[in-house]
Amino acid sequence: MSLKARVTVMLKDGVLDPQGAAIRHALGSLGFGGIDGVRQGKVIELDLTATDPAAAEAEVKRMCEALLANTVIERYRVEMI
Amino acid sequence: MSLKARVTVMLKDGVLDPQGAAIRHALGSLGFGGIDGVRQGKVIELDLTATDPAAAEAEVKRMCEALLANTVIERYRVEMI
Repeated sequence: MSLKARVTVMLKDGVLDPQGAAIRHALGSLGFGGIDGVRQGKVIELDLTATDPAAAEAEVKRMCEALLANTVIERYRVEMI
Repeated sequence: MSLKARVTVMLKDGVLDPQGAAIRHALGSLGFGGIDGVRQGKVIELDLTATDPAAAEAEVKRMCEALLANTVIERYRVEMI
């Protein structure tokens, strides 16, 4: 059995998100209204050979701290799926 | 009441994902093992003024088709959160 983890990395609230602002502007130009705000982040799906979900989740959190997220300006969430 | 939608956009299976491959390589360089595959995508969170979740979800799907995803090479998923 193998495990799959999904990591979602978003800019922290208050950190300027130019990509999100650009998407919001572009949606407005296309005629989409009723949008109060847009934030863009990234999602990273990992296929793992591990078999222990708890240990795998802890390992993925270490990956986030070491590489996947810049914890100064980004927050991350790990889900085992 | 306002609604929030989360759109996840991933490259379709079979489409080369150089960002995911780079992450996998970098994790290996940092000593993380047991990784079978990595795929990177993007997540877009929308704050909407709409009040009808079903109508809002349909509108967000139109946004995906028009702008947020390139449906030739990407698949998207919409969640109301």
